[in-house]
Amino acid sequence: MRTQVAIIGAGPSGLLLGQLLHNAGIDNIIIERQTGDYVLGRIRAGVLEQGMVDLLRQAGVSQRMDAEGLVHDGFELALDDRQVHIDLKGLTGGKTVMVYGQTEVTRDLMAAREAVGAQTLYSARNVQPHGMKTDAPYVTFDKDGESWRLDCDYIAGCDGFHGVARQSIPGDVLKVFERVYPFGWLGVLADTPPVNDELVYARHERGFALCSQRSATRSRYYLQVPAGEKVEDWSDQRFWDELKARLPRALTERLVTGPSIEKSIAPLRSFVVEPMQYGRMFLVGDAAHIVPPTGAKGLNLAASDVSTLFNILLKVYAEGRTELLERYSEICLRRIWKAERFSWWMTSMLHRFPDSDGFSQRIADSELAYFVGSEAGRTTIAENYVGLPYEAIE
Amino acid sequence: MRTQVAIIGAGPSGLLLGQLLHNAGIDNIIIERQTGDYVLGRIRAGVLEQGMVDLLRQAGVSQRMDAEGLVHDGFELALDDRQVHIDLKGLTGGKTVMVYGQTEVTRDLMAAREAVGAQTLYSARNVQPHGMKTDAPYVTFDKDGESWRLDCDYIAGCDGFHGVARQSIPGDVLKVFERVYPFGWLGVLADTPPVNDELVYARHERGFALCSQRSATRSRYYLQVPAGEKVEDWSDQRFWDELKARLPRALTERLVTGPSIEKSIAPLRSFVVEPMQYGRMFLVGDAAHIVPPTGAKGLNLAASDVSTLFNILLKVYAEGRTELLERYSEICLRRIWKAERFSWWMTSMLHRFPDSDGFSQRIADSELAYFVGSEAGRTTIAENYVGLPYEAIE
Repeated sequence: MRTQVAIIGAGPSGLLLGQLLHNAGIDNIIIERQTGDYVLGRIRAGVLEQGMVDLLRQAGVSQRMDAEGLVHDGFELALDDRQVHIDLKGLTGGKTVMVYGQTEVTRDLMAAREAVGAQTLYSARNVQPHGMKTDAPYVTFDKDGESWRLDCDYIAGCDGFHGVARQSIPGDVLKVFERVYPFGWLGVLADTPPVNDELVYARHERGFALCSQRSATRSRYYLQVPAGEKVEDWSDQRFWDELKARLPRALTERLVTGPSIEKSIAPLRSFVVEPMQYGRMFLVGDAAHIVPPTGAKGLNLAASDVSTLFNILLKVYAEGRTELLERYSEICLRRIWKAERFSWWMTSMLHRFPDSDGFSQRIADSELAYFVGSEAGRTTIAENYVGLPYEAIE
Repeated sequence: MRTQVAIIGAGPSGLLLGQLLHNAGIDNIIIERQTGDYVLGRIRAGVLEQGMVDLLRQAGVSQRMDAEGLVHDGFELALDDRQVHIDLKGLTGGKTVMVYGQTEVTRDLMAAREAVGAQTLYSARNVQPHGMKTDAPYVTFDKDGESWRLDCDYIAGCDGFHGVARQSIPGDVLKVFERVYPFGWLGVLADTPPVNDELVYARHERGFALCSQRSATRSRYYLQVPAGEKVEDWSDQRFWDELKARLPRALTERLVTGPSIEKSIAPLRSFVVEPMQYGRMFLVGDAAHIVPPTGAKGLNLAASDVSTLFNILLKVYAEGRTELLERYSEICLRRIWKAERFSWWMTSMLHRFPDSDGFSQRIADSELAYFVGSEAGRTTIAENYVGLPYEAIE
């Protein structure tokens, strides 16, 4: 088998890259370890920045998002019993975010790929990239009891944090930057109307809480819990009681509770590797970097990597600008580190840190008091939340 | 002896408070451990916020400052070989800072106090406040071989970090918040024309540097040095060589060096005690809080405490509003903590931390890159640098 770009991973970044390349006449094949249904079974948040919304439109897969997605002009910060509105639209000169689940994005991308007849090989085992430092890279894998080799010009590693792409790069090539937080997020999905029509990020001395929504009748709530906490120790009743204890009274009074239809705990981590490329293989999204979910940047960072790689490959194939390939990592990382910074900052501001000394605690209190009390401060929050601009590839 | 307000300490905060009270017809006596000449011998920076400039004008002691002080509309950030201008005036809607040495402020205040005939008792030994929790506080001290007792309504502790006022409050009453930084500032004063007409805050991988000015012919430069560094290990030549290594080429090319006329090392510390009052004694300025000098907030915070205490005492004596006294600490601390936050932030952004891990270093790089690259980010820097507004006493 041969293609121009071999894409490892059929999550939203691999699918979006594949669609953009296909539309531009650049041949690509996606190789995915799991089944399509498994990929769709992953529950993730879905707050899409303007840049990602535009990219989905450019890829021609925005029809259902534009019909069903919810445009949010702002979000709420709940600070103990006080609520502060962050007016994204007003503070950024008209920018907003789109609330539309990652699962739905993936579903739309899969349908679009199927409609144009581009190839995705699901249930591929023992996927392994080779020859990344040569002019003839290739990917091997097993499927349906046979061994396969896919020759290509370039490999895109879109296979997530646990994927094979990053792990195939020699350890001494990559520099790892990491921060593990001493807590996780306990999430509950429930078929209850959301407590608020915008997201609510709540800071409370008992810990952080987040109120988000999937639709007019489905809510997703999160609680900060200590690292190592077990989901079976959290009955629905305990979850709702704790959530109420962390929200302002105005919100608890209208909170509708109900049986959870999903309940899980996710750890919080900041992680970046540099560089994000190795010869002719390029890491995209979670394969190269992880953010804690505060600030909703994970999926959006994958989209900006996709945009960068796509625009570089476009110029490589159309204009022979192969020198641009060398700049992929550096261009991506400038924006990634700013989003890592914002995600770390939102996490630091809104969570309780068990080991925080008194001085650090007061500084965090003052930092939040200053930033929400100042229009310039609120603007820094808003412009990061809607997403910093993508860098043009020239 | 009896007065209405006994002020311990004849530094700028004690003198400014005394002048404002005197002008308002509230009798006060200042007790100072040192001689007047000793007080004037302390070399300190002098970047005055708009609020302090206004307060000095209100006190009627601004004549020389208005004639000789230098109004600065902005400052420079030097980031390795790049310079970024922070346009204070443009970003804050017209606010500026006044560069006028703390020694000159003190000299003007001493002259004004002498002119109105208000009493300052210099060279007072064994100063000790008493009865702060009673309705009849007093201060005892020895002077000219005799023991004295000064009865009063209130005591203002304006005697600095090492003064007796804070140390006279029982330890279990005060909560201490502190951060000691692993470096100090090596300062050199030289009779050379300043390298730049605005202050330059330089961040460099070799460490922080600051270029400031006293006049058109006198410069003050600082270098970050490790904690424990000895001043005798720094020849003038070594100082100038190291300063040049940390500044952008455009600046080193026009740097004029010369023999130092003063050279010293100061440690960097963040420190706050809560509350800032104990019965009828109120702590003002350095007696209650210290900031690292990055951001030039120390003297300005003392001025805002003076303003708060003066405006409360005014309402206490004129309208009997004694309930306001209880709010002194809380009103001061809101503004102090925001300035502590800004000073900590400027220090963290611009210095090299020997124990910083890779992730923290990248976050600091990204934070600075974001804040200087964004107008909202630069506005947060500018509005803190010119000084957040004073809170009205109602």
